[in-house]
Amino acid sequence: MRQAGRYMPEYRALRQKHTLLEICAEPDLATEVTLQPIRAFAVDAAILFADILLPLAPMGAPFAFCSGEGPVFERPLRTAAAIEALRVIDPDESLGHVLQAVRQIRRELDGRKPLIGFAGAPFTLASYLVEGGKSSNYFHTKRLMYREPDLFGQLLGKLAEVVRRYLVAQVTAGAQAVQLFDSWIGALSPDDYATYVAPHARRLLDDLTGLGVPVIHFGTGTATLLELLRDAGGTVIGIDWRVPLDEARRRLGATVAVQGNLDPILLAAPDSVWRARVDDVLRRAGPEPGHVFNVGHGILPETDPDAVHRLTDYVHERSTGAAVGAPVPDRTAADV
Amino acid sequence: MRQAGRYMPEYRALRQKHTLLEICAEPDLATEVTLQPIRAFAVDAAILFADILLPLAPMGAPFAFCSGEGPVFERPLRTAAAIEALRVIDPDESLGHVLQAVRQIRRELDGRKPLIGFAGAPFTLASYLVEGGKSSNYFHTKRLMYREPDLFGQLLGKLAEVVRRYLVAQVTAGAQAVQLFDSWIGALSPDDYATYVAPHARRLLDDLTGLGVPVIHFGTGTATLLELLRDAGGTVIGIDWRVPLDEARRRLGATVAVQGNLDPILLAAPDSVWRARVDDVLRRAGPEPGHVFNVGHGILPETDPDAVHRLTDYVHERSTGAAVGAPVPDRTAADV
Repeated sequence: MRQAGRYMPEYRALRQKHTLLEICAEPDLATEVTLQPIRAFAVDAAILFADILLPLAPMGAPFAFCSGEGPVFERPLRTAAAIEALRVIDPDESLGHVLQAVRQIRRELDGRKPLIGFAGAPFTLASYLVEGGKSSNYFHTKRLMYREPDLFGQLLGKLAEVVRRYLVAQVTAGAQAVQLFDSWIGALSPDDYATYVAPHARRLLDDLTGLGVPVIHFGTGTATLLELLRDAGGTVIGIDWRVPLDEARRRLGATVAVQGNLDPILLAAPDSVWRARVDDVLRRAGPEPGHVFNVGHGILPETDPDAVHRLTDYVHERSTGAAVGAPVPDRTAADV
Repeated sequence: MRQAGRYMPEYRALRQKHTLLEICAEPDLATEVTLQPIRAFAVDAAILFADILLPLAPMGAPFAFCSGEGPVFERPLRTAAAIEALRVIDPDESLGHVLQAVRQIRRELDGRKPLIGFAGAPFTLASYLVEGGKSSNYFHTKRLMYREPDLFGQLLGKLAEVVRRYLVAQVTAGAQAVQLFDSWIGALSPDDYATYVAPHARRLLDDLTGLGVPVIHFGTGTATLLELLRDAGGTVIGIDWRVPLDEARRRLGATVAVQGNLDPILLAAPDSVWRARVDDVLRRAGPEPGHVFNVGHGILPETDPDAVHRLTDYVHERSTGAAVGAPVPDRTAADV
């Protein structure tokens, strides 16, 4: 989850002058926004400020953020010719501004906190490309998947290779952990995920595991996909609030850590309510083999930043130790 | 799931002349639309054509369907005064046109097929009222739930009582089964469902169980709620495509039947693809204690009606017996 966002007044102030994509494109601005939550809250790591869609424009799929609508692509990508025309970019050339931001943020952090990089996963990126933006049902994406599995595989293969290169480049530039966001993967049945998506996620994640940094594999609505996500790869599985963490632990086994999983809307609840739920999350997560305390999805714009402040403090107060930056982090409040 | 809809040319033709709410308000039109899928497809039961939001306008919360946006309420319902002002209506007075449609449809069907009535469940109806329409995160609904649990309980209590009366009235008017749609309940964690919603669902469903007709309890994204939904009530648990039916059976036990669960977007796949999945659904459902074959959520407007035709035929071809209209139906293609 992005730490900075519209719930923070200092972020909104910068957004008066710059668009989201301008902030992402300008390393000084991306550095500033990445550091805003570090100054405001007791988080244990910084999260690179970027957008999962950034690689898609240089691949040949330009888009804009339209007010109230989210991203809108100039052309939905639904034909063999359009998919064949997608470029498998070199991130050093096409996304150099993001890598420059990573280097700059590392210098500014100066070892005080680790930096987490991230990218969107192939299915989630493909859903934006094929739908032409956000979707509530992923009709066009799934139709392409069912009707033209080879073409859909070609699309996911290209995206997986770009994301692989991009995350490797982020780690080379200095990211000390990376998160792969398959945010909308919960739209798929387990069979569909295993058949059409997992092979691409696995190839990408296999390669990242060799880099020696923690790799967080995250999605929402993944209650029936947890074991498949783990098998696809990652050292930490990110879980939304729908799956109790003790159940997740039991199903995932001892080879991976877990991240999560407070419903972010609990930040709008009275302190006594969310505090009881934080205690519950920590109790269910248990001590082993590693837990990154986090909200289960992004913080909403309506959230009071002071509640985030109180939350990060409370998590530290209730947690035992925070080996921040270790290959698999112990309990941290890294990523709220 | 509604059987008739924009994927059917005969429905679209009627919608050229009448709005959705006009069709619901006029028993002759509601009867006609309810019967359209019966004429077009080999479904084993008719589904009353109506909208889950119908009870809300007479309760004091008027709304309109805005093109491309779904329902929009005149005023989001977020204060104690507004919730206190909601009327607990008598369906015989306020929803007499729906009950009239039920009687008329029963006469038209003349015993050839049973009729399934339905209503929205308290949480899903509350989410529309509090958000003022559709939502992607239910921020305002959950905030009210967390901050003012007594007031939220009052809201769900009123809705549960109206829905209870409405479903009893549908059965009295002739509905031979009813479905309770808690479509958006998958937004909640198991703890939140158990704490804030289940008591209201249980009181409502307890009363319906005494009527001696099958009661289908349906939601989407319910993978971590299945046991709680069963415990809240219903003789059939409706399941989307995310939970394999054999897993659902194992978790739900032998006291309830299951309904589901083909991803409706598979209707856009080549026949060989969806046929294999139908076989898989039937195999996983097994023979006992009752399976209503269905799609996992509504059919999308882009769907080719001929695919629905071929699907219903195929389900009959592959199924063993169809005790249509029995208290708990054996395998039927009632509800695609």
